[in-house]
Amino acid sequence: MPGELITIEWKNNALVLLDQTLLPNQIVYEEFRTAEGVWDAIRVMKVRGAPAIGVAAAYGLYLGIKEASEDSYEQFYQELKKVSEHLGTSRPTAVNLFWALERMERTAEQNKQLPIHQLKNILLEEAILIHKEDEEINRKIGEHALSLFKNGMGILTHCNAGALATTKYGTATAPMYLAHEKGWDIKVYTDETRPRMQGSMLTALELQAAGIDVTVITDNMAAVVMSQGKVDAVIVGTDRVAANGDVCNKIGTLGVSILARNYGIPFYVAAPTPTIDMKAATGDDIPIEEREPSEVINRFGQFTAPETIKVYNPSFDVTPNEYVTAIITEKGIVRAPYKENLKKLFKTE
Amino acid sequence: MPGELITIEWKNNALVLLDQTLLPNQIVYEEFRTAEGVWDAIRVMKVRGAPAIGVAAAYGLYLGIKEASEDSYEQFYQELKKVSEHLGTSRPTAVNLFWALERMERTAEQNKQLPIHQLKNILLEEAILIHKEDEEINRKIGEHALSLFKNGMGILTHCNAGALATTKYGTATAPMYLAHEKGWDIKVYTDETRPRMQGSMLTALELQAAGIDVTVITDNMAAVVMSQGKVDAVIVGTDRVAANGDVCNKIGTLGVSILARNYGIPFYVAAPTPTIDMKAATGDDIPIEEREPSEVINRFGQFTAPETIKVYNPSFDVTPNEYVTAIITEKGIVRAPYKENLKKLFKTE
Repeated sequence: MPGELITIEWKNNALVLLDQTLLPNQIVYEEFRTAEGVWDAIRVMKVRGAPAIGVAAAYGLYLGIKEASEDSYEQFYQELKKVSEHLGTSRPTAVNLFWALERMERTAEQNKQLPIHQLKNILLEEAILIHKEDEEINRKIGEHALSLFKNGMGILTHCNAGALATTKYGTATAPMYLAHEKGWDIKVYTDETRPRMQGSMLTALELQAAGIDVTVITDNMAAVVMSQGKVDAVIVGTDRVAANGDVCNKIGTLGVSILARNYGIPFYVAAPTPTIDMKAATGDDIPIEEREPSEVINRFGQFTAPETIKVYNPSFDVTPNEYVTAIITEKGIVRAPYKENLKKLFKTE
Repeated sequence: MPGELITIEWKNNALVLLDQTLLPNQIVYEEFRTAEGVWDAIRVMKVRGAPAIGVAAAYGLYLGIKEASEDSYEQFYQELKKVSEHLGTSRPTAVNLFWALERMERTAEQNKQLPIHQLKNILLEEAILIHKEDEEINRKIGEHALSLFKNGMGILTHCNAGALATTKYGTATAPMYLAHEKGWDIKVYTDETRPRMQGSMLTALELQAAGIDVTVITDNMAAVVMSQGKVDAVIVGTDRVAANGDVCNKIGTLGVSILARNYGIPFYVAAPTPTIDMKAATGDDIPIEEREPSEVINRFGQFTAPETIKVYNPSFDVTPNEYVTAIITEKGIVRAPYKENLKKLFKTE
């Protein structure tokens, strides 16, 4: 990695996904030929990570309309809307999902004058373009982030905003891969990230495969490694950034940001601009997905708590903007005041 | 609980332990008739929790010398010392272990004039006394702690400093049991406490059995429940308190203390005086046990990270005294400045 394991591929007119629920023990690729299959793959997290979800949803939308009636544009668009809305219910927190679906809808609208069979091809091309752009975005994020890093640094990350969450390089991991390419000696600590353990199952896997020095810790060890001076910077990905710079990311990110602040360690967020939701004024406007209790108390086929116990399982949390040192996008590094500076990002388009 | 599951019992001249590695799925009692067996039970955490380890070690020492030569006191004491030192290697962080072993050694010294067979009986009686005292200590800690609580409170705890870690009531859980006995409506959040999951496996089990409203969260959700105003106080146990009030406890405690401080939530430590180590000037003098990587990456019979990955697995951390709102002992509530006030605790003996 990057490039060792392919997360998403379009092949033989089907979406091929690396089944991430079977990692790190099994490498299995699954082929999807229906929107319903893609919906399920996102829901059960065979594909995960905000950017990868966006790409998968775009292909999913194409799969959902490729057999649609070609009688009239109105009828076609209605079908497309239905598929799009359904795909949007698979993981409501990831804004890239909606960003990709809306971009596909817009592409349809902009080409409504064309014969439907041609329009279908254009939609597939658009999905492929979204996919391609993701790789370029990540590389640019990596370059900007690298300007904040130094040779010899210790870096802590949470969850997987890695190559497995995107198409190549990852977001939070992009500067790690680029530092490694430069021959820098960096040391990465990855929180295992309960309950789904993306940190130990995925981030550790992909960084180790790339030859990067990576150590797994449980989430509750982050404070200790920080207190020991082993961490010079924290960098995480995000599922959605609000217009005021509040950052929604995998559960546990908020805690890490508070610990980093306590120890005077910079806390960076890698965010492709499609992840920035200018329609969400603050973090309060971001829906937080709650998942089933079994994720917490029966992760591996045996109960780790009484079966009938109450469980609270929010899948994400919101880190207030004042805990965020900088947001790193493909267009550059954004610092406080976020409300003004994030707006500038979109004005320069 | 308390009283539903018996953690430690002396029965038919043997130590009977509830095997806590099989909870919450199986209730199995195991009988121990040798010091080596007790050493192993402590090491693999069939018995755990600082107070319970102390009690088990005292019985273990008796089991180790009950067949000892009765020729001379010197020879007997030498054998006793050897067994005691071996038991001390089972879990080096828990100071109650050493406290109980030293108390047993002192009892031998104080009764050296007696025939050895009688001395052996006195040592058994001393172990039984240590066991009995633990229950009384916990009840008193609970009463003091209850004075800091109010009806309707939300309380967060970490790991298991419950009845399963002691003999009855637990330390951190004692005020919860007493509040419940008074008919108070409290709501407890228990961190699952990776990697061994004592919070979900043990604390959730015993509080639920007692009819207390308890919710399991993963460690990395503590910040969220605090940010939502659901937590009015944090209370945890401890394996060793230094003379300056630095608190050594299960890994993750440090992080919880920093989060509590960030949200202005009081952070209390329940500490029987045998857990206070006046010989350790600060937390730096407390040895931190590191355990095997498999605890983190292969907890459930399958790897949750690449098998060859680097893992850092300290079993405990140290919370600096300035993050501690109060230390609650059976002799009363101690607040900063801890160095002076902890000393007073022992002077009034």
